[in-house]
Amino acid sequence: MEKIQRVARPGDEPLRPLPDGSARRVLCRDEHMMAVEVHFPQGVQAALHHHPHSQISYVLSGSFRYVIGDEETVLAAGDSIVVPPDAPHCCAAVEEGVLLDVFAPAREDFLQA
Amino acid sequence: MEKIQRVARPGDEPLRPLPDGSARRVLCRDEHMMAVEVHFPQGVQAALHHHPHSQISYVLSGSFRYVIGDEETVLAAGDSIVVPPDAPHCCAAVEEGVLLDVFAPAREDFLQA
Repeated sequence: MEKIQRVARPGDEPLRPLPDGSARRVLCRDEHMMAVEVHFPQGVQAALHHHPHSQISYVLSGSFRYVIGDEETVLAAGDSIVVPPDAPHCCAAVEEGVLLDVFAPAREDFLQA
Repeated sequence: MEKIQRVARPGDEPLRPLPDGSARRVLCRDEHMMAVEVHFPQGVQAALHHHPHSQISYVLSGSFRYVIGDEETVLAAGDSIVVPPDAPHCCAAVEEGVLLDVFAPAREDFLQA
């Protein structure tokens, strides 16, 4: 995948299955920011992880249990959450759903493959 | 509005009417990033402007003509675009719709009022 794609349409990149059972599609990106759709079947959980990038997750559909540090909240469609740099976080799909994750700077590790 | 609101629900902040005919709702934010919904009636245009913040716009609904510098594109629901720092940009609603704009760092100028 190119490092810079200023405009992204849903069909531009495939949904890539991830080991945890979710699937990721990288959307628009440059060196400063990147948008990513993550599709979760019901019950799938993204493991606790952290990264130096700032992140906002916006719930496009479904419902998610989201944990940052020792704070837990349930998010529905239209809700959003901001994850500070290096904060341990994880989420689980209470219902099948899709998150829009936006990172600053870009997750260059998502461009391999 | 507080500078930091880690979790935002659609009812937390009112939709604030803007002079151009659109309306803005600030969502989650900290010092690093901010998410904002912008609601556009059909035909409304956001004037050409620029700012030092990086931006990603994701089309939640509707259809938009989006201009960055001398490049113009039409975006539909699910499409996204990244705006580099200081790049002049504007958009117009081809159909009534909603943009999710995510900024890095936060637009502190949106917290006044």
